[in-house]
Amino acid sequence: MPQRPSSPGRLLYAQSGGVTAVINATAAGVIETARARGVKVYAARSGILGALREDLIDTSKETAAAIAALRHTPGGAFGSCRYKLKSLDANRAEYERLIEVLRAHDIRWFLYNGGNDSADTALKLSQIGKTLGYDLACIGVPKTVDNDLAVTDCCPGFGSVAKYTAVSTLEASIDLASMAETSTKVFILEVMGRHAGWIAAAAGLAGDGADAPPHLILFPEHAFDEATFLAKVKATVARVGWCTVVASEGIRDAAGNFLADGGTRDAFGHVQLGGVAPTLANLVKEKLGLKVHWAVPDYLQRSARHWASKTDAEQAYAVGKAAVEYALAGHNAVMPVIVRTSDAPYRWKLAPAPLVKVANREKKLPKSFVTRDGFGITAAARRYLSPLIAGELPPPTGKDGLPKYVRLKNVAVAKKLPAWTP
Amino acid sequence: MPQRPSSPGRLLYAQSGGVTAVINATAAGVIETARARGVKVYAARSGILGALREDLIDTSKETAAAIAALRHTPGGAFGSCRYKLKSLDANRAEYERLIEVLRAHDIRWFLYNGGNDSADTALKLSQIGKTLGYDLACIGVPKTVDNDLAVTDCCPGFGSVAKYTAVSTLEASIDLASMAETSTKVFILEVMGRHAGWIAAAAGLAGDGADAPPHLILFPEHAFDEATFLAKVKATVARVGWCTVVASEGIRDAAGNFLADGGTRDAFGHVQLGGVAPTLANLVKEKLGLKVHWAVPDYLQRSARHWASKTDAEQAYAVGKAAVEYALAGHNAVMPVIVRTSDAPYRWKLAPAPLVKVANREKKLPKSFVTRDGFGITAAARRYLSPLIAGELPPPTGKDGLPKYVRLKNVAVAKKLPAWTP
Repeated sequence: MPQRPSSPGRLLYAQSGGVTAVINATAAGVIETARARGVKVYAARSGILGALREDLIDTSKETAAAIAALRHTPGGAFGSCRYKLKSLDANRAEYERLIEVLRAHDIRWFLYNGGNDSADTALKLSQIGKTLGYDLACIGVPKTVDNDLAVTDCCPGFGSVAKYTAVSTLEASIDLASMAETSTKVFILEVMGRHAGWIAAAAGLAGDGADAPPHLILFPEHAFDEATFLAKVKATVARVGWCTVVASEGIRDAAGNFLADGGTRDAFGHVQLGGVAPTLANLVKEKLGLKVHWAVPDYLQRSARHWASKTDAEQAYAVGKAAVEYALAGHNAVMPVIVRTSDAPYRWKLAPAPLVKVANREKKLPKSFVTRDGFGITAAARRYLSPLIAGELPPPTGKDGLPKYVRLKNVAVAKKLPAWTP
Repeated sequence: MPQRPSSPGRLLYAQSGGVTAVINATAAGVIETARARGVKVYAARSGILGALREDLIDTSKETAAAIAALRHTPGGAFGSCRYKLKSLDANRAEYERLIEVLRAHDIRWFLYNGGNDSADTALKLSQIGKTLGYDLACIGVPKTVDNDLAVTDCCPGFGSVAKYTAVSTLEASIDLASMAETSTKVFILEVMGRHAGWIAAAAGLAGDGADAPPHLILFPEHAFDEATFLAKVKATVARVGWCTVVASEGIRDAAGNFLADGGTRDAFGHVQLGGVAPTLANLVKEKLGLKVHWAVPDYLQRSARHWASKTDAEQAYAVGKAAVEYALAGHNAVMPVIVRTSDAPYRWKLAPAPLVKVANREKKLPKSFVTRDGFGITAAARRYLSPLIAGELPPPTGKDGLPKYVRLKNVAVAKKLPAWTP
């Protein structure tokens, strides 16, 4: 195992891409572990942009209570961003600027908390650091609601959105069933997942059996066929009395067109913004004449920390802790990944995986997870998904009935370099 | 006080209209209290329709554990319906049929759990019972997420949707703030409330102060003005960096047109189904060029028992209990209403109110609850709303990570009458 760098140094932590209900639990894992080891943690404000701009936050200015409260606070406490660094060839200057900032602040460990892109950035940064003679350890820390990271068994962030989706599907279906005789017959829930149906699949945990909700799951991996969809909705309403549909935002027809862009126009003639659920609802109403309701929880699903999965929140903390331990033990260009050792009882551990095996890959929903008709999940999917939504770790709440989410002070570190211009 | 009817008799309980996260807690209050007093409870399947069809459920076939589990199960356990009885003059036969069914099963107490319409039906039924020489006590039991019932300080069902809305607004805003620099700048949450802005007002509890979310609440009581709306969104994004909007589904322009029907057409040229949030989102995108996300939780908001308000769940149980006590004490044509005796600390008690004072009235959001600019809530609104979302009473959950919601056996009572034809 390589040796820990000789400089005392500092550790930089940055959040990347879409935030989750538990990414701050990872931040807590990073900061608390580093503090215990006497290492100072800086955080980049608004993710990698903050690193490029030398806009760094000194987390040592936060109380232990504030850092502990990150464990139950959703969103990105230091800010995140959607900013993809170009390849080394296309924009070497950006990578060199990052090294310059890290060097100026004696940052010896860089922890990048994100998905595939972030793993790639961390990998490239560790490479160019070497080229420029700067001793830097880069650790990727997994995070994404999409659950599409390679190597790791699951991604922190996914379990909580999966739980939100399963519970919401169950609750809305109970509501629907209560009223179906004289009111709404069909309920359509749209969930996130542009390319992979992991979140849609989680809705399947709401019930088991042909008549249990959700009756139809529409996966982005399966081409949407209007006639088959309508026939199945009609048959379900005839048999059960009502029908719950869960649709991934990314479903497309056989020609590859997104359903959400299905020719809908607003009053100005512009394409209607998103909305697979209202599109499907119109279809059911027009073609089957059934009363329909639809829901699009959007950000609510990925920020619902109030009912986060305990498994997920614990794994999120654990990957943050492990990332610091790996970094201080001298690892470089690795990511702590979750290794499942048993389905039932659910057991998992962490292990370092080379970033090169994670970067720029995408884990698809296995074919064995979807039933033959394409509208449901299999027993194998249930075995995989079920432990990920197990347990709750609710936030403390105040007398005002609201969760006590923390807002950090986010004190800036004094700049040492000239301003950066992209 | 009138005497309890001499017949041992039975009690009929029926759920009416849109269900809530806690209407089953009321059912538990009714059944447990009646059991303790040795009175058998029948429930009407699918609300008043079940009573008309003589489709009654014998709740004595359910275990004590199943009835206790109703306290934490959303939806309507016996089924509800949207079926408004006509006036006595227009359809006297329906009321007479109801009395015939009640008489056939020796039902001496009828508890109707619903809103304004149900209070009216219960009132009329008690009157026609008298005319037909049938000794019947009718008790209205309050329920509605809309919080628009007269006399009572608040309605069971409202506190939980209010809590859902406040917490969701807070969580989505934290998410939005994390990402606003490079991603979405405006988030729009559509909430229920066709005529009254009670639920929209509850979103205001998510934050306090000019820069705290939600930055704009759009109430159905205030005419929507596009220019003012856009100017305020633009100014908020310039000042805060992002903007959270909460819109009631019922907002209308100055001419009284619903915004959700604002000329949007689908691919077939039909009016697009509902959706104030996507309509507003398009407006923000087209006119301000800002990236926007929107959410429509629909049934999720009124069925979210997993994070119900403790105040609400307790009041829902209490009105069921009181309704039975009033009935057995010989009250007739009354409703147990919530009387607030103190804001802070919050204190409340129940009292019987004559149904004639509740029936067919609608409680509007007071003008004093909305700020002068029409986009926020006042301190008076906070004093009223805050205790209603206080506390949680989470359901037990299983190893599968899902709440343990009960499904009753709902054993039918043998029919004694010929089938009913409307």
